[in-house]
Amino acid sequence: MKSDIILLGHGSGGMLSHRLLDELIVPTLSGIGPREQNDAAVLPEVNGRLAFTTDSYVVDPLFFPGGDIGCLAVYGTVNDLAMAGARPLAISVGLILEEGLPVADLKRVLESLRAAADRCQVAIVTGDTKVVPRGKADKLFINTTGIGVLQHDLDIRGSGARPGDQVLINGPFGDHGMAVLVSREGLELTSAIMSDCAPLHELVHDLLTGLGAAVHVLRDPTRGGVATTLKEIARQSDVAIILNETALPVNPPVAGACAILGLDPLFVANEGKLLACIAPEAAAQALAIMRRHAPAGEPGPTIIGEVHGESGGKVRMRTAIGGMRAIEMLAGEQLPRIC
Amino acid sequence: MKSDIILLGHGSGGMLSHRLLDELIVPTLSGIGPREQNDAAVLPEVNGRLAFTTDSYVVDPLFFPGGDIGCLAVYGTVNDLAMAGARPLAISVGLILEEGLPVADLKRVLESLRAAADRCQVAIVTGDTKVVPRGKADKLFINTTGIGVLQHDLDIRGSGARPGDQVLINGPFGDHGMAVLVSREGLELTSAIMSDCAPLHELVHDLLTGLGAAVHVLRDPTRGGVATTLKEIARQSDVAIILNETALPVNPPVAGACAILGLDPLFVANEGKLLACIAPEAAAQALAIMRRHAPAGEPGPTIIGEVHGESGGKVRMRTAIGGMRAIEMLAGEQLPRIC
Repeated sequence: MKSDIILLGHGSGGMLSHRLLDELIVPTLSGIGPREQNDAAVLPEVNGRLAFTTDSYVVDPLFFPGGDIGCLAVYGTVNDLAMAGARPLAISVGLILEEGLPVADLKRVLESLRAAADRCQVAIVTGDTKVVPRGKADKLFINTTGIGVLQHDLDIRGSGARPGDQVLINGPFGDHGMAVLVSREGLELTSAIMSDCAPLHELVHDLLTGLGAAVHVLRDPTRGGVATTLKEIARQSDVAIILNETALPVNPPVAGACAILGLDPLFVANEGKLLACIAPEAAAQALAIMRRHAPAGEPGPTIIGEVHGESGGKVRMRTAIGGMRAIEMLAGEQLPRIC
Repeated sequence: MKSDIILLGHGSGGMLSHRLLDELIVPTLSGIGPREQNDAAVLPEVNGRLAFTTDSYVVDPLFFPGGDIGCLAVYGTVNDLAMAGARPLAISVGLILEEGLPVADLKRVLESLRAAADRCQVAIVTGDTKVVPRGKADKLFINTTGIGVLQHDLDIRGSGARPGDQVLINGPFGDHGMAVLVSREGLELTSAIMSDCAPLHELVHDLLTGLGAAVHVLRDPTRGGVATTLKEIARQSDVAIILNETALPVNPPVAGACAILGLDPLFVANEGKLLACIAPEAAAQALAIMRRHAPAGEPGPTIIGEVHGESGGKVRMRTAIGGMRAIEMLAGEQLPRIC
């Protein structure tokens, strides 16, 4: 790369575009030699239903404690596939670059995309790069779209929760959103908060293999947090979900930062957590599987609530002092550009 | 929709996000009732290899003569699938909205996405919407990613050109890029230039059904235009391509506008054109198939050149006065944000 910043010409389709692709993007993302300059990637025939999901990432800042926009984009898409019970097969990467972006930043993001894809054993098979003039985007946006394969006949969806189901989470929540916010605002805290950014497909594989049809719902509580995702499940399944406040796992630095900033961790985004509605007889086994995948030294996987048949669409929380609090979706914006 | 502009809260994942999705985006794009709020769409098992392609669209202005960013995004992705010989199966739509975007503009773009998808008989099955603060994007960016199915064993790729192949184009070139440029700059011309924005999958289907293995390469000359795409094919196939200047079809208003602005239509983007390298014995039949799909009253499909075995990677043009001109890729930027 002769230039150390991105120029408009890198998006023109001409010689500069080819150089950017040949010298930086394709070698970093694919790890292979000369790229195939075709308009579409061709994948071998697969056996099984397909899962298909897309997400654009506009997180600010690009780099934050525990992750960056690159691994976020890969794990986010892998996790969305996993929530349908699918094994990730292939992903696409669409980049929108702002003129003037340091090439070093782009390189760092590409390396993170690649490392995350390697960790998930998913191939980045096709991509696109656009450049817009200074001031028409903010440094770098990424779209990742994924294809997954369902190698079972289970029907995992938000409408599958049933009365009696136990509601599980695989660890403490609120870390990703607070890590990004603290980093963006330059807040000084005594304890570092790290994003929980991580892939969930192996955990999901083990849950489905171990529990089969006892797994009713899987959802990752990203934007809007645990509260919004549970509210969506309650509505889709026409059930009530009752949470136990005393069971909710939140890391102390996250709880502290939320208290200072007047935020409720229930509404803060996560990028390595899943909520599962599990048939009651299988809940203990689900917890045990989640524990095998949980990092050491954290409040571990927990049963945080239960599904009830009456009051469809409602989420309520049994508070520490024995009251009941209704949980609603946020009306407006809590934390913009968190993913 | 209570607000007539997009607010940051429309991207929060909370109540405003749900309203935007439930009241505008999902009904317009899917035409169906309540959306399935799952993290991924699940598609039935398919028979055949899969094609997979992604493109982000950042065209400025959003609306231009002959099209807009919505139909451009659908046709662009359908065409990239078609260039691998695939029938489009499903597409995803990722929206990045700038705070303050008029909801009326978003609605118009969504309606165009939907109409284009209907025309191509492809389903929009999954999506994502992000909102960034004012000044952090330019109105609206779209990523469309597509899955297609290959229902044949042919291997259509840029490396497939062979000496003797005839190089065909299905109509005049340069219209899309000039339509966008004229519209963006507010130029006043005596004749209107319309984008050629159109889907090509049915033409490709007929070419593959009619000619089979005589179809060696299919590429759509978008960014970088006919010249850049031919240069890519010449390099990938390690052949030379000789163009005949007198055979090149350019609509007179496009030629006129290019002359005024000092642009070469060979490098201007197209969105409804394809270049095909066809075995010589099948070229006449390919032209006949292309003519059946060409709009009336235009310079029609044409053989514009031939593939040669020597001087691999070179593209040359036999000029009107009998000379030879080397065609190289553009070094820098010709027209930014053309797609």
